[in-house]
Amino acid sequence: MALNKKISPAVIRRLPRYFRYLTDLLIINVTRISSSKLSEKMEITASQIRQDLNCFGGFGQQGYGYNVKFLRKQIANILGVHSHFKFVIIGAGNLGQALANYSNFQKIGFKFAGIFDKNLDLVGTTINNKKVMHIDTIGDFLAYNKIDIAMICIPANQATIVTENLVTLGIKAFWNFSPTDLKLSNNIIVENVHLVDSLMVLGYKLLHKSIPVL
Amino acid sequence: MALNKKISPAVIRRLPRYFRYLTDLLIINVTRISSSKLSEKMEITASQIRQDLNCFGGFGQQGYGYNVKFLRKQIANILGVHSHFKFVIIGAGNLGQALANYSNFQKIGFKFAGIFDKNLDLVGTTINNKKVMHIDTIGDFLAYNKIDIAMICIPANQATIVTENLVTLGIKAFWNFSPTDLKLSNNIIVENVHLVDSLMVLGYKLLHKSIPVL
Repeated sequence: MALNKKISPAVIRRLPRYFRYLTDLLIINVTRISSSKLSEKMEITASQIRQDLNCFGGFGQQGYGYNVKFLRKQIANILGVHSHFKFVIIGAGNLGQALANYSNFQKIGFKFAGIFDKNLDLVGTTINNKKVMHIDTIGDFLAYNKIDIAMICIPANQATIVTENLVTLGIKAFWNFSPTDLKLSNNIIVENVHLVDSLMVLGYKLLHKSIPVL
Repeated sequence: MALNKKISPAVIRRLPRYFRYLTDLLIINVTRISSSKLSEKMEITASQIRQDLNCFGGFGQQGYGYNVKFLRKQIANILGVHSHFKFVIIGAGNLGQALANYSNFQKIGFKFAGIFDKNLDLVGTTINNKKVMHIDTIGDFLAYNKIDIAMICIPANQATIVTENLVTLGIKAFWNFSPTDLKLSNNIIVENVHLVDSLMVLGYKLLHKSIPVL
């Protein structure tokens, strides 16, 4: 699906949440739902839901509401669920291993293609049916395998040089878990999961309990 | 440090990023920095930096800029870095194990106090020097140990019932990795890390490359 207008980042960040709720509804055999009922469940206003979905053409019918299966499928298409994106993991430490074994990524069609490290104690060990490869061999690997995404699970002080090298090898998208902001050219996609930042926000909320933080 | 005014969530979410950049500056022995220099590095405007820091009293001096060590210390205090919050991990699967072993949490003063699972194959195994305990024993554990945070690393369909139980046992803050939105009472703190949502946004960016998403 090609979109020909600019969708606001906030709307896009809400789409996976719609997908989750609609999946849960399907599991309990709900076939249709009104925007007001969905609004109650998701704790966002019905008008927000209608506005969000109107960005993509609506999908609802006056007096009927939304067909859950159809709407879920549309949102899946918009998000690229089951686009069969292939990913490699850079860094086979605890976090890299956890991501390699995380089955929920496969469920939405992202395919684990390989894992790399420079630590010789890890190279050659098997993680989720793949042998850990030496990071120095990644050029050859990428020459023979079309990879969409690199998940970066290495210390911050190595992340910049490693990702810059991966860009020259053709990687266009990074899921970055290293606690640093990757400075890459504008046409490269970066999505950050800064775990320590998130934990610090939690710490802030604990420390200043009287102040609500969204 | 008690704050007596409402700080916007966006400002709070930027604080850990200031903390990271100031830490990096200290490491390379930078002792002072102007807001314009910091602005270049962080790729946010100098006026935004001044505005953000003014929420907490400023910390800068006209013509001097910011004292890096002092500013980092102030932000650390605001965030509760080194407040010695103690956490338990619920779920000793791949992700739970990765979090238990992640040393960056200790560096900011969060202390790993215990890990729980219901899987008898995992109970009794050792992860980062702690034996995995059975989830049914958590009531006793919490009666004898003051725990601030529970990190939730269990499947979505178990997360609600488990967290509701933890609330009755006195847990006030959750770092939630389960792919579901916990519905807990308003005085309970929840910070979500929805990995699949983040990966879906990355997928969206890949699929619709022409459309920038922040």
